[in-house]
Amino acid sequence: MRVPRQISKRKYVIVVGCGNLGSHIANTLSAGRSAVVVIDRDARSFDLLSADFSGFTIEGDAAELAVLETAKTADADLFISASSRDNLNIFIAQVARIHFGVPDVVARVVEPELGSFYGQLGIRTVCPTTLSLDHFLKPPSGDRRT
Amino acid sequence: MRVPRQISKRKYVIVVGCGNLGSHIANTLSAGRSAVVVIDRDARSFDLLSADFSGFTIEGDAAELAVLETAKTADADLFISASSRDNLNIFIAQVARIHFGVPDVVARVVEPELGSFYGQLGIRTVCPTTLSLDHFLKPPSGDRRT
Repeated sequence: MRVPRQISKRKYVIVVGCGNLGSHIANTLSAGRSAVVVIDRDARSFDLLSADFSGFTIEGDAAELAVLETAKTADADLFISASSRDNLNIFIAQVARIHFGVPDVVARVVEPELGSFYGQLGIRTVCPTTLSLDHFLKPPSGDRRT
Repeated sequence: MRVPRQISKRKYVIVVGCGNLGSHIANTLSAGRSAVVVIDRDARSFDLLSADFSGFTIEGDAAELAVLETAKTADADLFISASSRDNLNIFIAQVARIHFGVPDVVARVVEPELGSFYGQLGIRTVCPTTLSLDHFLKPPSGDRRT
């Protein structure tokens, strides 16, 4: 897969993991005119990308340096580790930050307890479980859907 | 499993699915002095409950009416369908609402596209993916962790 040089002029985002979360992020970014590369080990997961998705896909293991190099990780403005595996997410996020020098790196955290630990490593983390907790327990008044 | 009658004086909550999300909800509710019953088909998932969890667990398929009856669903103040399967969540939520008359029913939505559809059925839905999207793309200023 070859990423054209000209996309570096737009915001360049790499998303690892094309499950429900990763594909939703990638679709949203693509719709917002960002240049997006999505990496997943299973090419079938790319079926979750919308018909309008204008980014690139790489079938491969993002834990391999060669795969991140193919994705031109050093050029990324934002790197999002959104697989369902916490250890993989934080490992790749650290590589993106330290080895490739990506200025903004975010890792998904599946197990809420790990969020504070990872934060100490200088990686921004997002835990969808923690974020959604209040919405399960206390519905926003006047809005039946979130 | 037998749920003692006296717990009905506190807020009584049933949580279906004891994965990362369900267990986190159950632990939080239990710590907040709610009476909680967690239902899961796989007893091993109850390992995710904290040592302080003071609620009850039922190993069984919440899609079976007998299981929901064992959980005393008719007495519940809040019913949360938090499994990883959208179809199951919305089916059980409808049963809890229509058959057992639970006043507040919430279903987790895994695939963001389904949220608006389910909302039309009168079931409150929460989609952790949608809720976390902004946090992945735009970090809250001054806070590196969410």
